Amino acid sequence: MLEELKKRVLDQNLALVKHGLVVLTWGNVSARDTDTGYIVIKPSGVSYDTMRAEDMVVVDPDGNVIEGKYRPSSDLPTHLYLYRAYPSLGGVVHTHSTYATAFAQSGRGIPAYGTTHADAFYGSVPCSRELTDEEIEQAYEWNTGRVIVESVVDAEAIPAMLVKNHGVFTWGKTPEKAVEVAVTLEEVAKMALLTEQLNRNTPPIKQRLLDKHYFRKHGKNAYYGQT
Amino acid sequence: MLEELKKRVLDQNLALVKHGLVVLTWGNVSARDTDTGYIVIKPSGVSYDTMRAEDMVVVDPDGNVIEGKYRPSSDLPTHLYLYRAYPSLGGVVHTHSTYATAFAQSGRGIPAYGTTHADAFYGSVPCSRELTDEEIEQAYEWNTGRVIVESVVDAEAIPAMLVKNHGVFTWGKTPEKAVEVAVTLEEVAKMALLTEQLNRNTPPIKQRLLDKHYFRKHGKNAYYGQT
Amino acid sequence: MLEELKKRVLDQNLALVKHGLVVLTWGNVSARDTDTGYIVIKPSGVSYDTMRAEDMVVVDPDGNVIEGKYRPSSDLPTHLYLYRAYPSLGGVVHTHSTYATAFAQSGRGIPAYGTTHADAFYGSVPCSRELTDEEIEQAYEWNTGRVIVESVVDAEAIPAMLVKNHGVFTWGKTPEKAVEVAVTLEEVAKMALLTEQLNRNTPPIKQRLLDKHYFRKHGKNAYYGQT
Amino acid sequence: MLEELKKRVLDQNLALVKHGLVVLTWGNVSARDTDTGYIVIKPSGVSYDTMRAEDMVVVDPDGNVIEGKYRPSSDLPTHLYLYRAYPSLGGVVHTHSTYATAFAQSGRGIPAYGTTHADAFYGSVPCSRELTDEEIEQAYEWNTGRVIVESVVDAEAIPAMLVKNHGVFTWGKTPEKAVEVAVTLEEVAKMALLTEQLNRNTPPIKQRLLDKHYFRKHGKNAYYGQT
Repeated sequence: MLEELKKRVLDQNLALVKHGLVVLTWGNVSARDTDTGYIVIKPSGVSYDTMRAEDMVVVDPDGNVIEGKYRPSSDLPTHLYLYRAYPSLGGVVHTHSTYATAFAQSGRGIPAYGTTHADAFYGSVPCSRELTDEEIEQAYEWNTGRVIVESVVDAEAIPAMLVKNHGVFTWGKTPEKAVEVAVTLEEVAKMALLTEQLNRNTPPIKQRLLDKHYFRKHGKNAYYGQT
Repeated sequence: MLEELKKRVLDQNLALVKHGLVVLTWGNVSARDTDTGYIVIKPSGVSYDTMRAEDMVVVDPDGNVIEGKYRPSSDLPTHLYLYRAYPSLGGVVHTHSTYATAFAQSGRGIPAYGTTHADAFYGSVPCSRELTDEEIEQAYEWNTGRVIVESVVDAEAIPAMLVKNHGVFTWGKTPEKAVEVAVTLEEVAKMALLTEQLNRNTPPIKQRLLDKHYFRKHGKNAYYGQT
Repeated sequence: MLEELKKRVLDQNLALVKHGLVVLTWGNVSARDTDTGYIVIKPSGVSYDTMRAEDMVVVDPDGNVIEGKYRPSSDLPTHLYLYRAYPSLGGVVHTHSTYATAFAQSGRGIPAYGTTHADAFYGSVPCSRELTDEEIEQAYEWNTGRVIVESVVDAEAIPAMLVKNHGVFTWGKTPEKAVEVAVTLEEVAKMALLTEQLNRNTPPIKQRLLDKHYFRKHGKNAYYGQT
Repeated sequence: MLEELKKRVLDQNLALVKHGLVVLTWGNVSARDTDTGYIVIKPSGVSYDTMRAEDMVVVDPDGNVIEGKYRPSSDLPTHLYLYRAYPSLGGVVHTHSTYATAFAQSGRGIPAYGTTHADAFYGSVPCSRELTDEEIEQAYEWNTGRVIVESVVDAEAIPAMLVKNHGVFTWGKTPEKAVEVAVTLEEVAKMALLTEQLNRNTPPIKQRLLDKHYFRKHGKNAYYGQT
């Protein structure tokens, strides 16, 4: 079932590797099928070198395996939490990409220092709070979804979150779009770190320029790309 | 029309990717045809993986599409402004290359710390002023051209500009030359950042050495390369 | 003899190159054969481009060459020391990978700043003490094993050590696992350095989260990967 | 003439690209033929993509072109100065490799912080003094050789020099060896910069360990590699 979507999920998992966002098996992409509401996700801890479309796991919104011979990614409950919270999502991505994860480890969000950032995110990308000991011990991955959702400013305008001491989650209407956000996030994280090295007191981009670039690409007056 | 020039513009757009200056679709190269004065430019937001020579868009100096099924790059008006200001230009490049953009985000030009820089740029590469709110709201891309041109020291001797909070524009007599400048700019930006990490108080290269290297490669007494 | 193991040792030496952990010939992987107790190791100073499985050297636990036309890696005595100290080891890796070696040169261990680290190491990865002049002059490589072993907290829970002013040793039940640890170590070293650049006073990951991630992947209650 | 040596010089010029030490055409390798004393060097400003062995230029020790349709590298006089000063040299390399050039731009030599450095260089790699205005204006490239040679501690033990505000020269008994030194220099420069970021007050490697590693690989008691 959902063979085409499995192929797309495989391709986007491989795209994470191609874009240098994933070391070994540290990352995962899922997608939601509009008709059935089922989620297709990467299996846990399987090598990217040998992974095939038919290895993708199909689960229902509660995480019950509908089809697949492998266990789903151990981060599945976080994906499920996000799909439940945001009915318009079609894809979710998790990575430990280097620069964005450095921000997450330092407990800081990524400031919007330029138009590269503003083209994709309408403001700084936040870093979640720390999970409590209880949240860590019981249903950890589900609670990771919880701390993401409670920190989200606007899931459409800033489709990404750093999880403190952990890594990155991004999302979008499709898995392809969520991967594109993950690529952008890592690049703007690197630029932000370098910007601070050049000038510790760099102010964020001014609001008018943020507006201009964000709305040049998003919303009803967008004029970037093809119609 | 201009099939050969379209091929060259395509090739130089792909060269940006090969040289690691472009992530996703964030960059564009244009060229001007000497005979007609038409500009050939990359279409907006089209994937580099599938882009073909015939997808390039031909416009007149006012930006009217003469040929092409796609919308031209949304940065077209900045290119047009530069071609109008400098009649000798044959190519213009725009990138968000990582280290140069970090300088632009920090609001700083790139100091000339060594001969790698002096081989290509006769002095530091400036960073433009911020656009005013009015300039952002009305004809933003055209006004981006304006703030570049008003900060240019000598368009031939320093064929590049950082646009504050945004990215890089470079130019040259041909699109190939403009791409070469963009490659050089990113490398000298990286070297400059690392130089400052080693010694915050590094002075710029002395004038005689800057002169020597610049004029070894440029002008009537140049002796680098083949005749 | 041990042709299959030689092939695995060759493959893992080449994996170091593929993962960018080795420049020129600066690295080596060995494996121990369970039946004979023999060690298979890379020859010393042979180019990775031309190295074949039959070039691997077989030695006994005292380092006597059992088979092979080349000299074994000059770091062999360090490998032997580790195999002797830890009977469960099946593979040992040595690299000068860039970021981890920078930590070793600065005399610091790698703090556990996030879950990327905690997924692989149950706490910070220590840096050994300096060897004494006597230890350097007599049986240097054997004594390198000694300073590693005397600093090991728990060889299974933290299967890696930085050797001060030198580089990295990692180990595992198989050579494949030891290489995976070396890849992870370099990536967490890079993340740790960047984390400190963003915030000099970043505290380590909290214990509950360290526990959660480490035991999610290791031990009897692990639930990451496939059964 | 010297067809085999031309092929080796071409291969080593291409090796600089493969090792990431060269951007565009910024680098050159030469070799000296023992029998004739002629030097074979890369032509000036020719693209690496199309360069062939027969494009290499043969010159005599005074720089007169003996064979070749192209101009030799503009850095030829620096190569000639080094060959004249050190009769045992068989190869010379010039690069603007990123991290080593950052040290040269900051006016600092590369301290010996670890055994990666000590395996190749018997002490810190010095940075030359600045050329005087007169030295820049008259016979600049020849005088670049002069400031290198006057700063050399021991051309065999430390076969590399940073030229202030400029870049890197390395040398060896063969062009292959000189390229290997250039690769090592860039890597130890990167490690040294990162080491200082982790600890600004890192002391150099202690003398006994420097001795051990250097003489493990060099001189009559060397035991690294094959006999």
